[in-house]
Amino acid sequence: MGSAEVLVVAGTHGNERNAPWLVKHWLGHPGALDSAGLALQLVIGNPAALAAGRRYLDRDLNRSFTSALLETPSPADREMQRARELLALHGPAGSRPCALVIDLHSTTAAMGNSLVVYGRRPPDLALAAGIQALLGLPIYLHEADASQQGFLIERWPCGLVIEVGPVPQGVVNAAICRQTQWGLEAALTVLASARRGSLALPRSLTVHRHLGSLDLPRHPDGSPAACLHPLRQHRDWFPIRPGDPLFETASGETLRYQPSDPEPLWPVFINEAAYGEKGIALSLTRRERWPCEPEWLEGLQQLALQLLPSAA
Amino acid sequence: MGSAEVLVVAGTHGNERNAPWLVKHWLGHPGALDSAGLALQLVIGNPAALAAGRRYLDRDLNRSFTSALLETPSPADREMQRARELLALHGPAGSRPCALVIDLHSTTAAMGNSLVVYGRRPPDLALAAGIQALLGLPIYLHEADASQQGFLIERWPCGLVIEVGPVPQGVVNAAICRQTQWGLEAALTVLASARRGSLALPRSLTVHRHLGSLDLPRHPDGSPAACLHPLRQHRDWFPIRPGDPLFETASGETLRYQPSDPEPLWPVFINEAAYGEKGIALSLTRRERWPCEPEWLEGLQQLALQLLPSAA
Repeated sequence: MGSAEVLVVAGTHGNERNAPWLVKHWLGHPGALDSAGLALQLVIGNPAALAAGRRYLDRDLNRSFTSALLETPSPADREMQRARELLALHGPAGSRPCALVIDLHSTTAAMGNSLVVYGRRPPDLALAAGIQALLGLPIYLHEADASQQGFLIERWPCGLVIEVGPVPQGVVNAAICRQTQWGLEAALTVLASARRGSLALPRSLTVHRHLGSLDLPRHPDGSPAACLHPLRQHRDWFPIRPGDPLFETASGETLRYQPSDPEPLWPVFINEAAYGEKGIALSLTRRERWPCEPEWLEGLQQLALQLLPSAA
Repeated sequence: MGSAEVLVVAGTHGNERNAPWLVKHWLGHPGALDSAGLALQLVIGNPAALAAGRRYLDRDLNRSFTSALLETPSPADREMQRARELLALHGPAGSRPCALVIDLHSTTAAMGNSLVVYGRRPPDLALAAGIQALLGLPIYLHEADASQQGFLIERWPCGLVIEVGPVPQGVVNAAICRQTQWGLEAALTVLASARRGSLALPRSLTVHRHLGSLDLPRHPDGSPAACLHPLRQHRDWFPIRPGDPLFETASGETLRYQPSDPEPLWPVFINEAAYGEKGIALSLTRRERWPCEPEWLEGLQQLALQLLPSAA
């Protein structure tokens, strides 16, 4: 029945070293990762950037999977070459086809162990709901942001990011590794249940729905005029309300959060090191509880039926 | 009487962004930093690396100040050019001579607000003792390590590093900035007292004397075979005793600290991101209390007499 595998990607960003550390171990020690009986492909996303200890060499690989970029004629830069190679090898129509992908990331923000879902594809929501039911992980639902496009997982019919932090770039931290492994094993457990037809979703899913991002205040020359307020630092997933401290100038002046809407919002990716160049000091979300729809489960089950069992 | 200034360097490593953030503010806002009446030169150590968001471009600038490197004939790489330029401009015999230097760094290790002193030069020890008396900062005394040479401050007759963490590379953190400023202002207060002849040193100085560094255990191919044990992470300045957990393999096996000497040692720079390439997982020190010697104070006072007052 099955014809495809589960793709697990580590090191899509070359300075996020925890997941590559795990993947290299799992490749040498089958059994160290509980695959829940599923056949996996364990892949380093950007080996050249990992070797260089940099997020990327020419462009952010995890913003390179837009149709426009993928269809641009050659010559391509190194990340575009790698994006095409990943799809040719492991894509849904690749030489070793994968039906879905789990992309393992870490962050300098205090996101804890968390999930990032891109858009509202039914199987993604079912997978996220299943993991949340097992581990209670918070979910950041990224959607409708024209400035941030081309995420790797969007090229597979199903997939999500496991995002763990805080950990500095370039550092392997044993606790971050454990959280990453727990998140991945929960995802594989959910997929195996879906494949067996025994997955039951919880009644509802709690998501933090992306509304937009805030940049630091900037001087006319473009340089930052403030940094994150110390009361905001490491407060991912905690609500911010009108009047709360948001930024602090170098002079020590507090700049407060002054939205037109008085409702609280939930910031995520606060002061992520790699987002400075993207003009993102934090992203703002709304916490929502959605009833789990039957079509989510149906979508995931259909995909899961394609999955091959692991070799005995 | 005075003929020299105090050199304050930020961004000797281009991915340590907190001190450059402060220095750029202080340059535009005289008075935002309390210079204790002393004339300062505020300098970005490695502007090209700072612009690139990298520790360095061609080589670690803060290992480039050896006589052998500085005297090597041209052509030099970018960091060697910058090292010579810094000396030509701000060195003790430079075009704008500086009698001493405070070099502002940050680290991914949980060093808190701390001082690093290189060797046992009397004025350095007096300056460190004076700062410790004001703020109680722990001191890492680095010496006698043939594998780590060529630190910037060694080219001035007096100087030390203010080292603050943990903060990821590439991140400006308001609390880290405050600690950095407090450390620098304490240093300037001590120097101003020495210049006035009113500095009194405490009876003793507590140092953590460098004994050596430990690398991660490695596979025959050179790749790491373990990471720091989670009970060691963020435990800089806390003693480690024989039998304590030290590393953890990817399989979860604990590797214990098994020295020949049963005495406790004090680890520092635990899991600093930039030290992976140097083969340093942590450094081991011995905590010692040294009586403050009169010659330390004399040495610092002589230097401080060269210092110019700030413009009114």
